[in-house]
Amino acid sequence: MSEKPKILHQAIVTKSRLFTVEAVEFKFSNGVERTYERILAGGGGGAVMMVAMLDDEHVALIREFAGGINEYTLTLPKGAVDLGETLEHAANRELQEEIGFAARSITFLKRLSLSPSYISGFIDIFLAEDLYPSVLEGDEPEPLELVKWPLANLDELIARDECNEGRAVAALYLARDHLAKR
Amino acid sequence: MSEKPKILHQAIVTKSRLFTVEAVEFKFSNGVERTYERILAGGGGGAVMMVAMLDDEHVALIREFAGGINEYTLTLPKGAVDLGETLEHAANRELQEEIGFAARSITFLKRLSLSPSYISGFIDIFLAEDLYPSVLEGDEPEPLELVKWPLANLDELIARDECNEGRAVAALYLARDHLAKR
Repeated sequence: MSEKPKILHQAIVTKSRLFTVEAVEFKFSNGVERTYERILAGGGGGAVMMVAMLDDEHVALIREFAGGINEYTLTLPKGAVDLGETLEHAANRELQEEIGFAARSITFLKRLSLSPSYISGFIDIFLAEDLYPSVLEGDEPEPLELVKWPLANLDELIARDECNEGRAVAALYLARDHLAKR
Repeated sequence: MSEKPKILHQAIVTKSRLFTVEAVEFKFSNGVERTYERILAGGGGGAVMMVAMLDDEHVALIREFAGGINEYTLTLPKGAVDLGETLEHAANRELQEEIGFAARSITFLKRLSLSPSYISGFIDIFLAEDLYPSVLEGDEPEPLELVKWPLANLDELIARDECNEGRAVAALYLARDHLAKR
């Protein structure tokens, strides 16, 4: 593996309400210099995504309107970590806001990047188990639809066009393999 | 499922060399209006990611510096589709640029979104088989390292921190399940 490129210079290029674009000038170990643009992930506190088991067999999916692709998607509950909040607390808060359950057991599965060449930051994937009803008010423009899906039918879910979020597909496979090994 | 929100207004907020941010005002079927910001995927021609089998057992990984997270990552070959290019042609071009092989067989597996609430556009995942050596010049700042990995050891790969790109993790599981069903 090559030595990591050195950062020669970095500067904010532009900002919008949600997004900050930074230009970073790297010098590679072979002497080549290259300026990259990257999007700085919002807030900086990270993000969490949960594979929440409603019972031994069923995972909690949400059907949510996704403005970026202008379609409804069938995906996993997720959200940004608030400042000062632990990852586990954020996971449990988002579950209560998005599916109306809290979890007594939260297990870390994997830290995933989104598009590591172009976007900073990561999302942490958790397995949430031993759920109990508990509702927190979210800020959704309309109620999210909760869909109970048998994890044994993962192939059928992933064959659907509305289940298309890469990180959620990865998280579902990760959870399935994790549970199968118990 | 609710009726899809109507777009009331959309406008470019800011642009940088690589990224365009758009604000879109949606009206949901319950009457709620909400303005979303989204990043428009570059070029608009789409993107491809390949699970390329070097033989019956080994997948081609690349070790590449990822400027967004400022780390080397172990991931799959991928790239943007050029204007006027078919997805299959783009897949084969990127393979020749990034791993020095072309494929006689290219099978579509799945269309994935990146962050569907915040980013437009998709990446198409292909299984590439029946490879033969063929090199095209890419535009990498340093040569990519080709890593031959046994697909049967997927768990070990995904346990590594340097294998963190969500779409690549999803694609590797998709390919493994697809090949296991043959």
